[in-house]
Amino acid sequence: MIVEVLAVGTELLLGQIVNTNAATIGARLAEAGFDHYHQAVVGDNVERIAEAVRLAIGRADALIITGGIGPTQDDVTREAICAAAGAEMDFSEEQADTLRRRWAERGREMPESNLRQAQYPEGAELIANTKGTAPGLRMCIEGAWVFAVPGVPAEMLPMLDNDIVPFLRRESGSGEAVVVSRLIRTWGESESLIAEILDDLYETSVNPTVAFLASSGEIKVRLTAKAATEEEALGLIAPVEAEVRRRLGTQVFGIDEDTIERVVLELVEAHGWKLATAESATAGMVAARLTSVPGASKVFRGSIVAYQEDVKTGVLGVPRAIIDTEGVVSEATACAMAEGVAALLGADVAIATTGSAGPDPQEQPVGSMVVAVHTPEGTRARSLQVPGDRERVRAYTTTAALHLARLALAGAWWGSADHTHWDRREPSGR
Amino acid sequence: MIVEVLAVGTELLLGQIVNTNAATIGARLAEAGFDHYHQAVVGDNVERIAEAVRLAIGRADALIITGGIGPTQDDVTREAICAAAGAEMDFSEEQADTLRRRWAERGREMPESNLRQAQYPEGAELIANTKGTAPGLRMCIEGAWVFAVPGVPAEMLPMLDNDIVPFLRRESGSGEAVVVSRLIRTWGESESLIAEILDDLYETSVNPTVAFLASSGEIKVRLTAKAATEEEALGLIAPVEAEVRRRLGTQVFGIDEDTIERVVLELVEAHGWKLATAESATAGMVAARLTSVPGASKVFRGSIVAYQEDVKTGVLGVPRAIIDTEGVVSEATACAMAEGVAALLGADVAIATTGSAGPDPQEQPVGSMVVAVHTPEGTRARSLQVPGDRERVRAYTTTAALHLARLALAGAWWGSADHTHWDRREPSGR
Repeated sequence: MIVEVLAVGTELLLGQIVNTNAATIGARLAEAGFDHYHQAVVGDNVERIAEAVRLAIGRADALIITGGIGPTQDDVTREAICAAAGAEMDFSEEQADTLRRRWAERGREMPESNLRQAQYPEGAELIANTKGTAPGLRMCIEGAWVFAVPGVPAEMLPMLDNDIVPFLRRESGSGEAVVVSRLIRTWGESESLIAEILDDLYETSVNPTVAFLASSGEIKVRLTAKAATEEEALGLIAPVEAEVRRRLGTQVFGIDEDTIERVVLELVEAHGWKLATAESATAGMVAARLTSVPGASKVFRGSIVAYQEDVKTGVLGVPRAIIDTEGVVSEATACAMAEGVAALLGADVAIATTGSAGPDPQEQPVGSMVVAVHTPEGTRARSLQVPGDRERVRAYTTTAALHLARLALAGAWWGSADHTHWDRREPSGR
Repeated sequence: MIVEVLAVGTELLLGQIVNTNAATIGARLAEAGFDHYHQAVVGDNVERIAEAVRLAIGRADALIITGGIGPTQDDVTREAICAAAGAEMDFSEEQADTLRRRWAERGREMPESNLRQAQYPEGAELIANTKGTAPGLRMCIEGAWVFAVPGVPAEMLPMLDNDIVPFLRRESGSGEAVVVSRLIRTWGESESLIAEILDDLYETSVNPTVAFLASSGEIKVRLTAKAATEEEALGLIAPVEAEVRRRLGTQVFGIDEDTIERVVLELVEAHGWKLATAESATAGMVAARLTSVPGASKVFRGSIVAYQEDVKTGVLGVPRAIIDTEGVVSEATACAMAEGVAALLGADVAIATTGSAGPDPQEQPVGSMVVAVHTPEGTRARSLQVPGDRERVRAYTTTAALHLARLALAGAWWGSADHTHWDRREPSGR
């Protein structure tokens, strides 16, 4: 099964947005075991889209088109599919009703232009959009399957995973060969050191294969096995996963969709404790990450974002003497913030952050950050030197704070020499 | 001058890296005033690269190829250009010496495989690589200019800016044509309604062109003009921009790189006021957005994330009676939170959020959100019904809170029927 990807959007050609969809779809096609040789991008132009569709269906079994199915005049993918297939435009009263109902549910009248989203090329099937209003399309043109999905990633992805990939698996008859991946998520060492630690597995392991992925300071080890059944694939993965875990120890914090924020909440809940945060440099980012998890309210009490010094002393009760002698960006201040918020909000566990996020230095050089964690076992702080700009410094510190809390909650209190590689810059090579 | 872009690399097709080069080059081509209708990606395969080159030179005046000119066996762009042009492979002794010298300068002996980087299609000119070892190529094939540059962005970009774009400007003789875009940023109405309001401009305006972009509830109107000089292009944009602003009124909050968080901070600072937030459902996201702006500390005091009811009463001083009679998710509670945090943190302006973000309803149906804004002029709350999942509800509420604050600070206090379309789902098209 050969599959191509065509992204539609003048803003892509103008470089105003990056074509992340093509990468996402490419990764999914690879996982599913499909061949994928061509990606293309064209603007919002009926003729050029139609020509690209005809080129693709001439050499592939399937084509996935992203973008151009919204409600505005420059959304012309539907028209282009008609042109490529020599089909008329049809109209779905059912879809029109769905659109009207969605608008009405929000107490509003639908602008007429939205009815464009109820149009579809004659012979096409609609694919439900669970995250937005524009339905996707599936149509067979001269023996090739053509799909059209929204350009918005959050709307595109469910259609890809729930409709298109399963459909193509069935169509290709290769549904019985399954590809299974396990993502072993780690934090604490650099990608290159982990690659060194696992080098022999990387070199010798054929099924499963071993790959490394880095994002936001977390390194993922992906094990991918191909077998007749999912059970068999998992059986191939299990011994390699066990070996990876043995070598990486407490660096491993989760599997697949586990996130560090969920792991932290689960650990706090397992102890029967409550959690709070006190944030200066990250200013709410740790709290926002924790509360992105449904049910966070079971253990999360709240946060004090103490952006100004007098909020740290006045609200959190950080002793003035500590700030005067140690500074705002210090381990002593971070510990006092953590203990202060635990007392104020009635929490057993507290995470605190302070630091100099830039672009101008505050007391310390830009990137000098401090995280403190308080538990009923005690309070400990850790200084970090984070590379990059303000946004990156804040994001990496947020992730580091959650991981240091995880380690403390797991009884693996850190020393100042542990996990010193987490702040390595992501590799830029390609 | 029509220019195409071809990215070479199996890792792009596998989704292991994102094709940022295409976006970078697209933006540069637009700035230079070249027409750019097609981008493509193929893997490290001689035949498919050669076929893509022939397709491009059949319809464009120039083609920029990124990637596949490194030293390893899978770098086959040079071979593919030979195949497309029917040319022999030549070898540059001078380039070989340059390579050997660069390795020697680092005290290392060059692996023989690196001599591949001294090969070039007969008739091609080499383009110096100031950031790496692989030289770029420029070659005329059947009247079209074909360029090959490294896939590493840091090596690609200097060749693009210093060699390729200036060369094409000279070749096209249109060195003087520039393209200028203005992005008019709005919030408050749906993309489809804005498209309706501006429909005649969209239909009739040729220079500048009008386009619509949506992200996170904000709608952008892009005006793009082509002219001999930047000044002339801006002169073409000015009257259309004035008309768009006239029709959209207070919905317009900024231009180009303006963000709502920066606009809010500037308004607070202009009044000589201080700002704080009290957040329940958004749990720090409003504070995190505001503090993403460098210098936010000039006006931002801090935030109380009051995730639990007793934190709202105990720390923010929301009267128990209000929660008991009106509920936690109510305009009265949101107003009391805003006033409470202003008093506690010594702020003149406060933004408060509460609501039911899901996935399970809390008091009210999922997506029932309330934002309150307090200024020295008074306190007002606004109920919102936000579609989507937890992540989306929180993100849209954060954006809405900042925009409602902007309107209040600009003296445009909202009524309950204003800006009712802001919470429309993002359109699927792009």
